[in-house]
Amino acid sequence: MTPIFERVVVLGLGLLGGSVALAAKSRGAGGRVVGATRRREVLEDALARGFVDEVGEPADAVRGADLVVLATPVYAMADAVRRIAPSLATGAVVTDVGSVKAPLQDTLPGLLPRGAHYVGSHPMAGSHLRGIENASADLFEGAPCVVMDAGSPAQEERVASFWSALGGRVVVRDPAGHDAAVGWMSHLPHALAFAYAAALEGAPAGADEVAGSGFRDFTRIAHSEPELWADILTANRKALAGPLAAAAGRLADLGRAVEADDTEAVERWIAGARDTLSRASRDGHELRSNDNPKPTARSSDGRKERTKTTS
Amino acid sequence: MTPIFERVVVLGLGLLGGSVALAAKSRGAGGRVVGATRRREVLEDALARGFVDEVGEPADAVRGADLVVLATPVYAMADAVRRIAPSLATGAVVTDVGSVKAPLQDTLPGLLPRGAHYVGSHPMAGSHLRGIENASADLFEGAPCVVMDAGSPAQEERVASFWSALGGRVVVRDPAGHDAAVGWMSHLPHALAFAYAAALEGAPAGADEVAGSGFRDFTRIAHSEPELWADILTANRKALAGPLAAAAGRLADLGRAVEADDTEAVERWIAGARDTLSRASRDGHELRSNDNPKPTARSSDGRKERTKTTS
Repeated sequence: MTPIFERVVVLGLGLLGGSVALAAKSRGAGGRVVGATRRREVLEDALARGFVDEVGEPADAVRGADLVVLATPVYAMADAVRRIAPSLATGAVVTDVGSVKAPLQDTLPGLLPRGAHYVGSHPMAGSHLRGIENASADLFEGAPCVVMDAGSPAQEERVASFWSALGGRVVVRDPAGHDAAVGWMSHLPHALAFAYAAALEGAPAGADEVAGSGFRDFTRIAHSEPELWADILTANRKALAGPLAAAAGRLADLGRAVEADDTEAVERWIAGARDTLSRASRDGHELRSNDNPKPTARSSDGRKERTKTTS
Repeated sequence: MTPIFERVVVLGLGLLGGSVALAAKSRGAGGRVVGATRRREVLEDALARGFVDEVGEPADAVRGADLVVLATPVYAMADAVRRIAPSLATGAVVTDVGSVKAPLQDTLPGLLPRGAHYVGSHPMAGSHLRGIENASADLFEGAPCVVMDAGSPAQEERVASFWSALGGRVVVRDPAGHDAAVGWMSHLPHALAFAYAAALEGAPAGADEVAGSGFRDFTRIAHSEPELWADILTANRKALAGPLAAAAGRLADLGRAVEADDTEAVERWIAGARDTLSRASRDGHELRSNDNPKPTARSSDGRKERTKTTS
């Protein structure tokens, strides 16, 4: 394919950054793909594996780049931008893979030189595995890739096309809308799974012997990386407060109905919860009439279109 | 194989009962397998599919049975036993597939005629699918099958052998120990997943578009059958109260640390939760030194042995 950006520089080569580099290179979305991180052994590894065309120190590597992808933890992104800002060319686009968007939108644009643009992204891919050794050219295949709608439409179209070229399913949101949505659909489930994991301190010895597939599925996200998730949850603490309180409230409601031994009330309550889940789940949409306008997303050729709910 | 019971009567032919019948017949664990339920169309279906050798009305079908498997909802089991008790032969063993054991152990033995025995079981298999149309001869393959240790060792050995013959991994517990363990490992995750599902009432429109594989895994158990789970949660309300309170407390702890924006404290907290999860998970055992005695389980030939943690 014709490269969407001529020189793509990825800052940070962990699971996500390594996968962005490898996918951009192997799918031709970047004319030349450059890796930058301060850990020399990771750079050598990325070169040896053929994930990148060249490597360098961040402030040097970004010279001439038309796309810079920040793939460091969220809390480190402002410092990374300060370091590279003097080297950025006019027209350069800076994006990122951070899980929280409003705090970055509030901070990063002001750190860029005139003529460079920030377009936040959030490719919702990854796993509890980490490190470039687990990177994959297919990591973004079919994954929601949220691109910010924040006032730079031409650059936003190009960034959307980049994620589409990497296999992602592009979803467009403004930063606050993104943070609210992921607070509900990703951060709250993680918080509940972490709370459950912590509570298991009180489980009797040998309880593990009665754990089945439900336990394994439910707890999978509780194995996530503590450093990454502490970063995400605190960065999104404002959008997360409401969902956390709502879940705690519903748990208390259910506990009261169970304690009252009112089986019919509990049944109605669970049935209502299951209906809500179906309505709030992507798969559930297919069962609903199309009476609510759907949010828009961009297709792979960059035009806005109705979001497809079958894929 | 030599049948473990000559005449196995399964009362209730839903997903679990249908699978018990089919597995017992196809694996030869029962000499003759009989289905009984009051819904005539289900009986005809079971016969037509070859899941059972014969069908009948419960009080008639159990005549001459040496094993009766109660596969009705927990709340209906006492009535089912009252109905069949006059027809039970001396030496007959009654077991069940209920998810809660102490209330049944307190009730059912007193309803049986002299010379018949109750041995509670809990095969931890199933799914959010239901009905005999989803039954499978392999449903219990590798699934934990908990058999009660409640004072009838000879009959308990036979019931354990029956579940082993159906492919289950037998785990032995007393009723209170079972209810505590499943309260932590199964009922609490369901309660948390139901509470999350109910809370989604507050999620913004279109939030489903950012739902990924973590959301799907975490919410899978929230699609479970409301009638079944209302029955389970209320029946186990005493053992569940402590785990529910613990999870609510840990969720509040995490929420406070996040709100305080103390990223390092949140990271330590999540790391601790993850360690607890690993210790409390079956897979985690393999990483630990073998310094604690493990609970015992019976092997497929019926002898007590150390529980294997690799399989």
